Amino acid sequence: MDVVNQLESEVRSYCRTWPATFNRAVGHHMYDVDGRQYLDFFAGAGALNYGHNNPAMKEKLLEYLSNDGIVHSLDMVTVAKEAFLEKFNETILKPRDLEYKMQFPGPTGTNAVEAAMKLARKVTGREEIVSFTNAFHGMTLGSLSITGNSSKRSGGGMAVRGGQTMPYDGYMGDDVDTVEYLQSFLENSSSGIDAPAAIIFETVQAEGGLSTASNGWMRRIEALCREYGALLIVDDIQAGCGRTGTFFSFETAGIKPDIVLLSKSLSGYGLPVSLVLLKPELDIWDPGEHNGTFRGHNPAFVTATEALNYWKTPVFYGALKAKSARINEALSEIVDTHPDVTEVRGRGMIQGIVMDPKLCADVQAEAFRRGLIIETSGAESEVLKLLPPLTIDDLGLEEGLSIIKNSVNAVSESTLTTATG
Amino acid sequence: MDVVNQLESEVRSYCRTWPATFNRAVGHHMYDVDGRQYLDFFAGAGALNYGHNNPAMKEKLLEYLSNDGIVHSLDMVTVAKEAFLEKFNETILKPRDLEYKMQFPGPTGTNAVEAAMKLARKVTGREEIVSFTNAFHGMTLGSLSITGNSSKRSGGGMAVRGGQTMPYDGYMGDDVDTVEYLQSFLENSSSGIDAPAAIIFETVQAEGGLSTASNGWMRRIEALCREYGALLIVDDIQAGCGRTGTFFSFETAGIKPDIVLLSKSLSGYGLPVSLVLLKPELDIWDPGEHNGTFRGHNPAFVTATEALNYWKTPVFYGALKAKSARINEALSEIVDTHPDVTEVRGRGMIQGIVMDPKLCADVQAEAFRRGLIIETSGAESEVLKLLPPLTIDDLGLEEGLSIIKNSVNAVSESTLTTATG
Amino acid sequence: MDVVNQLESEVRSYCRTWPATFNRAVGHHMYDVDGRQYLDFFAGAGALNYGHNNPAMKEKLLEYLSNDGIVHSLDMVTVAKEAFLEKFNETILKPRDLEYKMQFPGPTGTNAVEAAMKLARKVTGREEIVSFTNAFHGMTLGSLSITGNSSKRSGGGMAVRGGQTMPYDGYMGDDVDTVEYLQSFLENSSSGIDAPAAIIFETVQAEGGLSTASNGWMRRIEALCREYGALLIVDDIQAGCGRTGTFFSFETAGIKPDIVLLSKSLSGYGLPVSLVLLKPELDIWDPGEHNGTFRGHNPAFVTATEALNYWKTPVFYGALKAKSARINEALSEIVDTHPDVTEVRGRGMIQGIVMDPKLCADVQAEAFRRGLIIETSGAESEVLKLLPPLTIDDLGLEEGLSIIKNSVNAVSESTLTTATG
Amino acid sequence: MDVVNQLESEVRSYCRTWPATFNRAVGHHMYDVDGRQYLDFFAGAGALNYGHNNPAMKEKLLEYLSNDGIVHSLDMVTVAKEAFLEKFNETILKPRDLEYKMQFPGPTGTNAVEAAMKLARKVTGREEIVSFTNAFHGMTLGSLSITGNSSKRSGGGMAVRGGQTMPYDGYMGDDVDTVEYLQSFLENSSSGIDAPAAIIFETVQAEGGLSTASNGWMRRIEALCREYGALLIVDDIQAGCGRTGTFFSFETAGIKPDIVLLSKSLSGYGLPVSLVLLKPELDIWDPGEHNGTFRGHNPAFVTATEALNYWKTPVFYGALKAKSARINEALSEIVDTHPDVTEVRGRGMIQGIVMDPKLCADVQAEAFRRGLIIETSGAESEVLKLLPPLTIDDLGLEEGLSIIKNSVNAVSESTLTTATG
Repeated sequence: MDVVNQLESEVRSYCRTWPATFNRAVGHHMYDVDGRQYLDFFAGAGALNYGHNNPAMKEKLLEYLSNDGIVHSLDMVTVAKEAFLEKFNETILKPRDLEYKMQFPGPTGTNAVEAAMKLARKVTGREEIVSFTNAFHGMTLGSLSITGNSSKRSGGGMAVRGGQTMPYDGYMGDDVDTVEYLQSFLENSSSGIDAPAAIIFETVQAEGGLSTASNGWMRRIEALCREYGALLIVDDIQAGCGRTGTFFSFETAGIKPDIVLLSKSLSGYGLPVSLVLLKPELDIWDPGEHNGTFRGHNPAFVTATEALNYWKTPVFYGALKAKSARINEALSEIVDTHPDVTEVRGRGMIQGIVMDPKLCADVQAEAFRRGLIIETSGAESEVLKLLPPLTIDDLGLEEGLSIIKNSVNAVSESTLTTATG
Repeated sequence: MDVVNQLESEVRSYCRTWPATFNRAVGHHMYDVDGRQYLDFFAGAGALNYGHNNPAMKEKLLEYLSNDGIVHSLDMVTVAKEAFLEKFNETILKPRDLEYKMQFPGPTGTNAVEAAMKLARKVTGREEIVSFTNAFHGMTLGSLSITGNSSKRSGGGMAVRGGQTMPYDGYMGDDVDTVEYLQSFLENSSSGIDAPAAIIFETVQAEGGLSTASNGWMRRIEALCREYGALLIVDDIQAGCGRTGTFFSFETAGIKPDIVLLSKSLSGYGLPVSLVLLKPELDIWDPGEHNGTFRGHNPAFVTATEALNYWKTPVFYGALKAKSARINEALSEIVDTHPDVTEVRGRGMIQGIVMDPKLCADVQAEAFRRGLIIETSGAESEVLKLLPPLTIDDLGLEEGLSIIKNSVNAVSESTLTTATG
Repeated sequence: MDVVNQLESEVRSYCRTWPATFNRAVGHHMYDVDGRQYLDFFAGAGALNYGHNNPAMKEKLLEYLSNDGIVHSLDMVTVAKEAFLEKFNETILKPRDLEYKMQFPGPTGTNAVEAAMKLARKVTGREEIVSFTNAFHGMTLGSLSITGNSSKRSGGGMAVRGGQTMPYDGYMGDDVDTVEYLQSFLENSSSGIDAPAAIIFETVQAEGGLSTASNGWMRRIEALCREYGALLIVDDIQAGCGRTGTFFSFETAGIKPDIVLLSKSLSGYGLPVSLVLLKPELDIWDPGEHNGTFRGHNPAFVTATEALNYWKTPVFYGALKAKSARINEALSEIVDTHPDVTEVRGRGMIQGIVMDPKLCADVQAEAFRRGLIIETSGAESEVLKLLPPLTIDDLGLEEGLSIIKNSVNAVSESTLTTATG
Repeated sequence: MDVVNQLESEVRSYCRTWPATFNRAVGHHMYDVDGRQYLDFFAGAGALNYGHNNPAMKEKLLEYLSNDGIVHSLDMVTVAKEAFLEKFNETILKPRDLEYKMQFPGPTGTNAVEAAMKLARKVTGREEIVSFTNAFHGMTLGSLSITGNSSKRSGGGMAVRGGQTMPYDGYMGDDVDTVEYLQSFLENSSSGIDAPAAIIFETVQAEGGLSTASNGWMRRIEALCREYGALLIVDDIQAGCGRTGTFFSFETAGIKPDIVLLSKSLSGYGLPVSLVLLKPELDIWDPGEHNGTFRGHNPAFVTATEALNYWKTPVFYGALKAKSARINEALSEIVDTHPDVTEVRGRGMIQGIVMDPKLCADVQAEAFRRGLIIETSGAESEVLKLLPPLTIDDLGLEEGLSIIKNSVNAVSESTLTTATG
């Protein structure tokens, strides 16, 4: 840790929450240099949906590297890329009746968001992009301009507004229909909003506190897009790749976005890659109009191709459903028994519980002391956010849920003791 | 190729220039699925300075992956990161009397540029960033706002100006001192420029046509920064990591930039990683103020740490010097014998020759037919740009130079024949 | 008219609605070159609240000009300016327990808006300015950036967003509390809104369709400003100077805005002048930091000073009240008897009736044929907007109301006939 | 003065330079309340080219107002407007072989600049507007975005860049051709400048220090506009209306701008009005797309129409030429005899002398003590700027020149005494 404290910038953050030096990881476990084992309910902020060093992918990756497969090739054609394109189309797109062209815009989520914003503006000739309260889309200037978090945005040092922020599903309480509200702005030529190039949303606000969009809300947003000529962009960077129980998080709604953004768990192995899915008729890019050195990272294609096998297996879907239900049950129990814990949020394998930010930080720290790595979410970090690998076994899941329950108990009690003591 | 044509977006570009499906690569050679061998003078646009699948790095990488080393960890502490931090400090910074904190802002160059822009604005409380004609800094909105190329910028679909564009060294011919010109804007409070947060430049304009900044120019720009309270940022993403013959491309000038940006060949293996070096007194980041899922990619740390060994070896520097001189000699000979080829540009292992854009495209295509992968550069793609791996052997270098000479001859002749026939 | 058609730009508009060449005007009547008399329910879009060529002001103005009083003096001190400053303070500010410094930012409303935006940003160090749906604040780039009308904004040719547009009082129907909505954005640090420099509103949306802010709404917006450190700016350019029945339109709410903007009827004679009222503690302007050639127009001071006499007379207030009630009664009657006319909007001497835009245009044209000049308002020009001089006598008022009623009848009937015929 | 100090905002400026309360003015003289007479070499910052209360215009104005002529009419047709349109076309445009449509965009210069920027962007579909070092175009956000002065711009509180600032004629010394420089940016697609909507300049930088554009420079800028499809806008707000010796200041160059902006002395009487002249083929405005309450101020039309008579009289041109020569002679003499005074700048009836800013302020104050009102100009207020009414008689001119000479002598001596004493 000394090396890091001395040489790495103050911008580092997770190493402050989990002060350990890690050196090995397998599945849902990480190990530090002292040999201590940690249960991982963080999963690389959603980049490790299949666990650490997944053995099937590892085998393919080692084989590829050993044989001097192409590692870096910008957007030249490689065998690894062709295999991924074909298998993704066959395994994911076709069975869902989706037809998309694929763009590799650079290896990170924010590269994908920036590419989508460019394309939406180019296709429509419009500039405004409607985003939502508590949205998080990335840290480069374009993505920041549609991100809700004001401290992130002010970090940009230069105010850029990508468009108007609208209330997300449920933002104004149960009584206010936020789609109707958005529509009232779009249909009124003096509302202060220009006709938008796109509407972009996350189905689950993974960084913004785990609010979720209902299927009805998503369908009506899609209808608004059609009515007003705006592209529908789903940022599925954290909620996609199976996190909510289906490959795309919007499948339950039956919508067909114009553009879908994937990254994080796409490679399945924590290797940087991102993907913009766009409807063929929108593919008006000029060659090289958006580029980048590390777009189309071949080792990531290799593991991503292997990862797709999970999505051929009905049993995998079933397991996700069962685990999601179990998580919900366990969290609901905590809410029922702790007045300080007010709500369960999220869906599928991304759920959390809401509490006071101070309490939440204490629970997180206590859980770490008990060997569990778990993240918080929300504007005030008021949500304890469970993000276990999708592949976690029942034993691991129960252990984690148990640590959470015990940590809440421990911290609540100690708080109680302190308060009354 | 069919798969790609059918499924990948029209934005793909290099695969159009070099229509082959690649499956293997070693050192300065690539191989396609038909077993054809290509000599690589492109080196991943500067991301493969040590050649493809460098054996020493490969060994370390396979070992790390085999042992289930941590692949993805955001900015948690890992053994791989600590090793890199320490060795980079010992091997690169200390011997050059440089003291920097290190930030891993996301794995691509444009992530590094965006982070540097944010930090410069935060530190100075100013907004304007001075960049230069023909500069290229990246494709996300912030980086685009300081990039010269108008088609790249217009691709953003939203005009954002990061500041004033100033003439690069030599831009206005030998008679005009562009530093003096910039100074006249900075010292005049009615010049239309606000006091800038930073001045950012590349020492060699790798995408912009291989113009170079002289040592004197760099030193005087540094002095301007000191005088007017602007940070000096060197974008060493393509020219750094040894490309010009020294690790940092600005070493010959003896300047000490406030912020230095590295990416591309930092990992040495084509793995995505980037690095912001910042003077310790500028490290006022709040934890997490700039973040990203794939910052601090551990496999890249492993190979990057191994790559640093090259920079402990004086003989490596000597070889670079000799190869650079040989390249210059060979290119000068072409200029001397071909009136159509007007100039040698660049320095070290990034040099090129200037000619008519049409001719340049023809030479590039002819070279590919003869088994050489080589890129063009410049606003009109008017520069044939040599970017061989630094580790290329003499045989490979001579072969490549020979193909270039013969390609120019072949295309010039055919042009001549066409013209007179 | 030929001269105008040939030589004046196509941007001209009112001359298309009322195709006549005017040469004389007195009180609430205008006359064209053919001697035809028109009743004026437009009053210079609110710039002629005291009628045309008001005799008391005329006398003072002619005297001033005859004696070679200073006409143009930028912001030098003149006797005319001193007289205005003193009398405005005594007659308007002191009796209302208001303490403001006065700034003359240039002679038009948009100059005042731009000055207020600058000052709010300077005082708070923040940039975002919250404005409302259907707001109209002016046609220069800063004012446009907070104006709702998208065609006006797109006319700017350059997208500038001054901040977020929020729903005005009643915008979302009776069930949604728009102050609560705004508050939910301000209190949530991830809502996508930065802490605003100011909140700006009109008490009656004169161009935006005559929606009005209730006293309670205004008070709660003021409270929000206090809570979140934003300045409260009331744009009273059209609704002020007595148009709603009190000198300032916000008097009924009992609020004390940080900045108040006046123009239009301030001079009382249609002479260009505008005024920014700012709380003394906000007066941190540097000398000349905002300037302009025609700020502080002396002939306008002369007539403005005379105009203030109206506000010393209780009977004047009483007459406004009576006339406002009569207008409301007459308009309500139209609504009651015409299903096509759906609503009375506005308050005081700025009221209107809502109908289909096509019908509204027909009524306006019919009224002109009958000798009445009357404007429309709203995003779709769906509101027939009555803006008679405050000084109109009962005879004139009744005549105008009668023409309106008859015009609605005539046009509705003809529509009916057409439809059934 | 007490009233002003107490009630008017700190933004007031000229009243600090010339602390007197004025109440009357005729021709080139102003009078304060104590009966003191001042010689006016400021002329309303160029708004009073025909002197204060010019008798011929006064007569017409009083007659018009006495007869209840229309004062305020937005853009309805009035007899006063028709008369102006016709006479301006006959007297000014036709004899100069110029064909323009006329737009009245609001009564101030900055309204005209904003309208021109909008139109240029609308016509070309481009956004960037090229302006020049030391340019001043106005104080609303759009105009500020192309103004050189950084303190004015920073007053906007919001950074908006309208385009790139380029070096004005002579800015980089005699050796650098600034047109060639600009061309190098326009022809290079990677220069960082987008194809511009317009190039805007002043022929004399009235606020920016009295630098002048040569005829050759203007012609070559016009040629650049034609070559690159940009509109040529001449901001003739201060230098036009005869200030340089011809009605338009660009007449000597023989250019035909696409758009010409006039205001200040257009009315001839200090009444607010401005005018955008645009080539007929550019008149693609939609009705009302740019509007404003005080556009087309009728009393200003009345005096403006009368003012045009001056331009029918060859003897007037001759007198201007003679006076301009006399001013140049007198100023040159000061430069020749005072090493502290380094240069004569400007042309025609707008000339000045350059000296140290401190000295310049002292000379200005001394001149005021001697009864002369005279302004300074330049980024550091380093130019004493003579702006007498065009109609000044020889006696007045000599008196003013004499006061200037004596003031320089007095202040230089005292400085000398101080320095050596």
